Amino acid sequence: MGQGLRPKCALSSTAAMIRRNKGEVCMNQAFLERDKSIHIAPCPPQAPRAGQVRLRVAYCGICGTDLHIYRGHMDQRVQFPQVIGHEMSGRIAEIGPGVDGLMPGDPVVVRPLAPCGKCPACRAGHEHICYQLNFIGIDSPGAFQASWTVPAATIHKLPEDTDLKLAALVEPLAVACHDNRLAAVGQGQMVAVLGGGPIGLLNAMVARHRGAEVILSEVNPARLALARRLGFKTIDPTSENLKQSVEEHTDGTGADVVFEVSGAPSSLAAMTGLARSRGRIVIVAIVPEPQPVNLFEVFWRELVLVGTRVYEVPDYDYAIELVASGQLDLEPLITAELPLNRLADAFSMLDRDATQMKVMIDCGGTT
Amino acid sequence: MGQGLRPKCALSSTAAMIRRNKGEVCMNQAFLERDKSIHIAPCPPQAPRAGQVRLRVAYCGICGTDLHIYRGHMDQRVQFPQVIGHEMSGRIAEIGPGVDGLMPGDPVVVRPLAPCGKCPACRAGHEHICYQLNFIGIDSPGAFQASWTVPAATIHKLPEDTDLKLAALVEPLAVACHDNRLAAVGQGQMVAVLGGGPIGLLNAMVARHRGAEVILSEVNPARLALARRLGFKTIDPTSENLKQSVEEHTDGTGADVVFEVSGAPSSLAAMTGLARSRGRIVIVAIVPEPQPVNLFEVFWRELVLVGTRVYEVPDYDYAIELVASGQLDLEPLITAELPLNRLADAFSMLDRDATQMKVMIDCGGTT
Repeated sequence: MGQGLRPKCALSSTAAMIRRNKGEVCMNQAFLERDKSIHIAPCPPQAPRAGQVRLRVAYCGICGTDLHIYRGHMDQRVQFPQVIGHEMSGRIAEIGPGVDGLMPGDPVVVRPLAPCGKCPACRAGHEHICYQLNFIGIDSPGAFQASWTVPAATIHKLPEDTDLKLAALVEPLAVACHDNRLAAVGQGQMVAVLGGGPIGLLNAMVARHRGAEVILSEVNPARLALARRLGFKTIDPTSENLKQSVEEHTDGTGADVVFEVSGAPSSLAAMTGLARSRGRIVIVAIVPEPQPVNLFEVFWRELVLVGTRVYEVPDYDYAIELVASGQLDLEPLITAELPLNRLADAFSMLDRDATQMKVMIDCGGTT
Repeated sequence: MGQGLRPKCALSSTAAMIRRNKGEVCMNQAFLERDKSIHIAPCPPQAPRAGQVRLRVAYCGICGTDLHIYRGHMDQRVQFPQVIGHEMSGRIAEIGPGVDGLMPGDPVVVRPLAPCGKCPACRAGHEHICYQLNFIGIDSPGAFQASWTVPAATIHKLPEDTDLKLAALVEPLAVACHDNRLAAVGQGQMVAVLGGGPIGLLNAMVARHRGAEVILSEVNPARLALARRLGFKTIDPTSENLKQSVEEHTDGTGADVVFEVSGAPSSLAAMTGLARSRGRIVIVAIVPEPQPVNLFEVFWRELVLVGTRVYEVPDYDYAIELVASGQLDLEPLITAELPLNRLADAFSMLDRDATQMKVMIDCGGTT
């Protein structure tokens, strides 16, 4: 049975059947339905073909994009029922023909991008933004399952003693590494992060690790509190003057880099006013509809707006190094942990509880 | 009498008095009044102080900004009556104390920027976009006068045999050199220029000179005809599909660089759709009010929007080299030439006649 196809013997989450297949525990997979319901079913191992590996998935975090899918914002793109999820960690279970350099048991993460290799972006060396990108976990089956078969080219090995729960943050952390790299954040710079969700906070952490001073702007009190707990200067733009605050902290100069991670119209209206001459504004947020941008400020101060999307190999390498070395205090970002058979509760919690940041799912692949 | 102050003995343009002052012909200067009228008066030479030089102005072109001033769009910034004009060429007439490397008679152009030297932009080395920039010819008296005294630091010497009429195009050409430099236009690239006025055409010329293929989009038939006459592929986006045309010329890839020189809402809406993955969109136009920008496309294809304003020293050097060497066919851009005492007619003509491109004023400083 192919991944992503609903098995005929559908089982409820409480009755999830454990059965044996070729001597291995057959664990579960979670199918998201178009009506937001989540259906737990056995997950028969899919033997890796040439160039593939099969993984046991340890953990998979819920991404903002997963929540968008859950909320129905991406119904035109996603084929339901679908196993989604892409912020994962696990171990190699089985290796397909022609795959070198990997061994069963190796701790790994997946860079969930399968580019076409032929489009103009791929030909230009920008495979991560391939015009026909297969984003594994959105466009094809993802990691909310105990056993997952993926192209070996997507695998990044982790150091043996890496904490697999924190390693499931490599994928979103790689986004922040990519954003910081394309923004050329460096020592002594001043960085404004607009939006304090997981990607905003990770951008702030990476910027600080690269030697920048950070101001984080956010309206959600729980997110503001977490950012402060992590040592960041914060500002609530609904009660304080964001531009004035940035100017005070930069002796009137403005921020070297502004990360726009919120997508909020008020933030998009403010971003150009916060940057110094030739400052960089990084468009991290997904902004579905055209929004007013102050192009006069872009012209007047020769600002640079940079769109950044997902990550490239060096960003994954850097993110793995940051997680494995324990240089970032990532643990506080995980605000809840639930087993795979409670994925429905996890989505429901994230959908309703504004204090949640990263909800981590134990996919059972380590048991 | 200081420059920019209206003399008590105001003279009509037809009665412009030629009188002698210290043995030199006292030629004319043109004051723009708030009511759009232009007042011609004698121009007594102002002796250069330390660090200054006095010039005899040969030619001065009318810039789009001058037309904005004439139309009243910049009344809050400009002190009337004012001698405006900044796209000039001329010769050194007199040298103030402490000025080295210049001789009376030297052919020169002025880079009309007087930065404060203290603001954050100046401290960062971006003096050309100084927060308190004195743009000579807008914020202080300009070149629509036969005798002009300016800081020696603004002077760029021309090769002796440079055509002074074409040299008055160095300033707008330096804008295009700056735009092309910041956009990193190079050999084999595909460049879309949106807007075929003088700055759009000059950007197209510089891009072609740097080895790029150019498509120029414009709606004005006269400008389209001139662009075609200069050998550019043109498109009228009101009758042809601009995006499709760019895609056809790039095998579906998109443009490496898009110069947005029009400021038109339809063009701002189209620009992000024309660029290839990681393509650069250069905001050259002055867009007074925030306008909708497709930030999803910026994110999705990792586009870079770059604001560019005026020029820096290397841009002037490059523009002078291009003019002096005759490598660009600049002559067709000059669609009219009038003497300084007909400056009112020149503005009126530009204001009403959509076939005009660059109107050149003979400022009389060579006679």
